[in-house]
Amino acid sequence: MTQASYPRTAQTTPTRHSDRVTYDRTAVHSVLDEAVLCHVGYVLDGRPVVLPQLHARVGEQLYLHGSSGARAMRAAADGGLAVCVTVTLIDGLVLARSAFNHSINYRSVVVHGIAAEVSNEAEKQAALAALVDAVVPGRSAAVRGPSRKELAATTVLRLALESVSIKTRTGPPGDDESDLDLPYWAGVLPLTQAPGPPAPAPGLAPSISTPDHVTAWTRPTTPSS
Amino acid sequence: MTQASYPRTAQTTPTRHSDRVTYDRTAVHSVLDEAVLCHVGYVLDGRPVVLPQLHARVGEQLYLHGSSGARAMRAAADGGLAVCVTVTLIDGLVLARSAFNHSINYRSVVVHGIAAEVSNEAEKQAALAALVDAVVPGRSAAVRGPSRKELAATTVLRLALESVSIKTRTGPPGDDESDLDLPYWAGVLPLTQAPGPPAPAPGLAPSISTPDHVTAWTRPTTPSS
Repeated sequence: MTQASYPRTAQTTPTRHSDRVTYDRTAVHSVLDEAVLCHVGYVLDGRPVVLPQLHARVGEQLYLHGSSGARAMRAAADGGLAVCVTVTLIDGLVLARSAFNHSINYRSVVVHGIAAEVSNEAEKQAALAALVDAVVPGRSAAVRGPSRKELAATTVLRLALESVSIKTRTGPPGDDESDLDLPYWAGVLPLTQAPGPPAPAPGLAPSISTPDHVTAWTRPTTPSS
Repeated sequence: MTQASYPRTAQTTPTRHSDRVTYDRTAVHSVLDEAVLCHVGYVLDGRPVVLPQLHARVGEQLYLHGSSGARAMRAAADGGLAVCVTVTLIDGLVLARSAFNHSINYRSVVVHGIAAEVSNEAEKQAALAALVDAVVPGRSAAVRGPSRKELAATTVLRLALESVSIKTRTGPPGDDESDLDLPYWAGVLPLTQAPGPPAPAPGLAPSISTPDHVTAWTRPTTPSS
């Protein structure tokens, strides 16, 4: 049976603000699913590298992809790549009466592990479809699928969700008691990622109307208090 | 004289999509200034760690801050910490006729360097004010400034903007010529980070009205084509 929480590991044990860190599986999944992209960190020649990447979660696996020629993809294909994948959603700006208590309402998932190349063809194709659907749900069924050549040009990586934590801040500013009577406005300015009007590609046949998966695009969200 | 571009370094030379990478100083500054947060990567015990952080640019310096007790802050204070700071703005979802040509319109700045603790008290205070103003312009003048104790509890790091690049994708999908007649919708769904209505803190005196720096909050933006 799948546990409700990920196990706490050495790498996911916080040194501070431990009250903000949990290992709740449902909360982790919802952040991974809502975010358009992640930041992937790895070590190259002893130095840190952080790059934005699309990701898709399928059950307890996280998939990443990239050009087969990219440095990180080659390193992962060559025996696995130690990565830290971090996904952050900004929910609001927290404006306190003191500079010190300013903060951000956010949800941030951190995944540690070894990213390995997906060599099984069926899994690779399913992961690539999931990567398209992770950005626009329902999209992969309404496009031309990848050719042999395109599949060869793409490396897909799999990272098991095992060493995972989520850090969350919600709610109003936490001002010091002695600051509450200061004459400064305090509160939260909520932020969301909002779509604008879709822009059809130049030359698109006028007979092709904008599909529901575009006009109704929204991120899967969970209530945040 | 300041050059219009950052010098290309070994760490900022791309291995692919080099047409999307530039070193333009103005473009870099605008992304750093527009983004609410960055992702900081560093190496801990040989493994990558990536954490979201607030940042502020002052001229050619990038400032980060954190609890003086945090692992990364202690490491940086102890002789400097090799970091990769990545800042990514999502401008739109690029929906092509083929799965393969799906993409994201984005602007992403990558900064490599050594983050060092700011020990000069005046620079530290200026950096902390800049960190508040980076999130909400004008805010630092309308709050209680940091106390001695709060200053001691906070470590500020400085990272020089020297090894810096920016990767950008803009415009419509780049479909293959042979896909143009497929009966699939293609185009761009623009995305922006939009503020909702400000939520005053519980107990805020009704006589304190929402200030302009909150109601008029917007990110400094540059035109993206």
